[in-house]
Amino acid sequence: MHRTPTSQSPIGIFDSGVGGLTVLKAMQKLLPSEQLLYFGDTARVPYGTKSQVTIRRYAEEDTRILLRHQPKMIIVACNTVSALALDVVEKTADPLPVLGVLEAGADTAVEVTRTGRIGVIGTQATISSNAYAYAINQASADSEVFSTACPLFVPLAEEGMLNNEATRLIAREYLAPLLAEEIDTLVLGCTHYPILRTIIEETAGTGVTIIDSAEAVAARAAALLRNTGMEASGTRATIPHLMVSDLPQKFSSLYRLFMNATVPDVELVEV
Amino acid sequence: MHRTPTSQSPIGIFDSGVGGLTVLKAMQKLLPSEQLLYFGDTARVPYGTKSQVTIRRYAEEDTRILLRHQPKMIIVACNTVSALALDVVEKTADPLPVLGVLEAGADTAVEVTRTGRIGVIGTQATISSNAYAYAINQASADSEVFSTACPLFVPLAEEGMLNNEATRLIAREYLAPLLAEEIDTLVLGCTHYPILRTIIEETAGTGVTIIDSAEAVAARAAALLRNTGMEASGTRATIPHLMVSDLPQKFSSLYRLFMNATVPDVELVEV
Repeated sequence: MHRTPTSQSPIGIFDSGVGGLTVLKAMQKLLPSEQLLYFGDTARVPYGTKSQVTIRRYAEEDTRILLRHQPKMIIVACNTVSALALDVVEKTADPLPVLGVLEAGADTAVEVTRTGRIGVIGTQATISSNAYAYAINQASADSEVFSTACPLFVPLAEEGMLNNEATRLIAREYLAPLLAEEIDTLVLGCTHYPILRTIIEETAGTGVTIIDSAEAVAARAAALLRNTGMEASGTRATIPHLMVSDLPQKFSSLYRLFMNATVPDVELVEV
Repeated sequence: MHRTPTSQSPIGIFDSGVGGLTVLKAMQKLLPSEQLLYFGDTARVPYGTKSQVTIRRYAEEDTRILLRHQPKMIIVACNTVSALALDVVEKTADPLPVLGVLEAGADTAVEVTRTGRIGVIGTQATISSNAYAYAINQASADSEVFSTACPLFVPLAEEGMLNNEATRLIAREYLAPLLAEEIDTLVLGCTHYPILRTIIEETAGTGVTIIDSAEAVAARAAALLRNTGMEASGTRATIPHLMVSDLPQKFSSLYRLFMNATVPDVELVEV
């Protein structure tokens, strides 16, 4: 049985793993009074290398895990799910509003670009889906999108190699074809990438504006809550409710890397 | 119902994904007349970042998938499973013989070392388990083991960055603490690493013998079949029976990278 959500209901966020913590962090910063619920499917991470059929099945299961807690909104923090299975989440969560990082990043890029030449980087699955190019062209038919997959950025981020010569070489190699196209805007189309933002920004140079999809989706969530009168009242900062499907030793250290904070209590959920 | 296996029964090999194809390849080379069965759990790869409880559950399920085909022997091509769940596989497959890459690599290192100073590289889970150090010290109490996790080697191998400056820098960074200990033998404790063998060998230098666990386990399998009179008769090279739990686009290109061959028919198995 589902109750009608109120303004005090939580906001549910899910991701394939820890990457979506950049969305949690952006949400906390922008909406400190909201009760945030985070599910990271750490048992089945990564989604980016899996087939569409599998990703769509996982997306439905992940949404149902959040629905148990009667949220007022669902945020898909996973670019792969946003790209390949947003309709599955919308159908499963209906009539709740659903926001995807991908759409938020795409729309923000269109608002920011001056030349209409937009670069997108992400996992292989996100880039192969062409979902960013599609979403950007929906928002502005004149934009030209240049995209490239950067499969090593996730493990480099998780290794904490944030200021490292090898990371710099790899970033240069990945970004070269986009920079050759004279992009003026670059979308970080994977929630891990903000961790490497300094090196990506350095490599892209001052002429390129970086769009962080995590910040973009948090801004859209704030606007939606404001416009629908569903903002939580209260002035106290809340503690997020964290759920994961597997608890590797690694989780604590990654939580620290993403959130600059020690890990609070985490609930283990079976998938 | 299980029939008693005969010398013509297949040999079952499983891994968390495509990495175990290096074992398949070593087996094909050494035992061309054997019917080989390979299951890669591509839907749930990687195991290396997951908890022991999860890995043990997967190990049992993977073994059962191979048992459906009435094999005469099980080879655990996954170092993580060899390290954390070999007993689960043995119990599930009982009374069939079970060989793990880890034990084969450890025993071979002990045979080869002259100074007793052995280096081991692998995934975080394999290294944290200390299973190589344990197995090496079981075989030779005098050996000293120095090990380090190299989490970036798998994605670097899968990106095909086999002759690349960034890979060289990362290899140098990973291997430096082992080389400082003056090891004379280095075990590639992850089935992906043979793909990067050239760079690893160059970085380690001529004084260090590289042990490829995939070649080591194939040699043990050949010896066991010979000693038990269970070698398949026939002189024709067989085509391996491949099974995966998910079929990402990536599979074909990785198969080519690992096997230097185009991918044959692949059966999709649900997990």
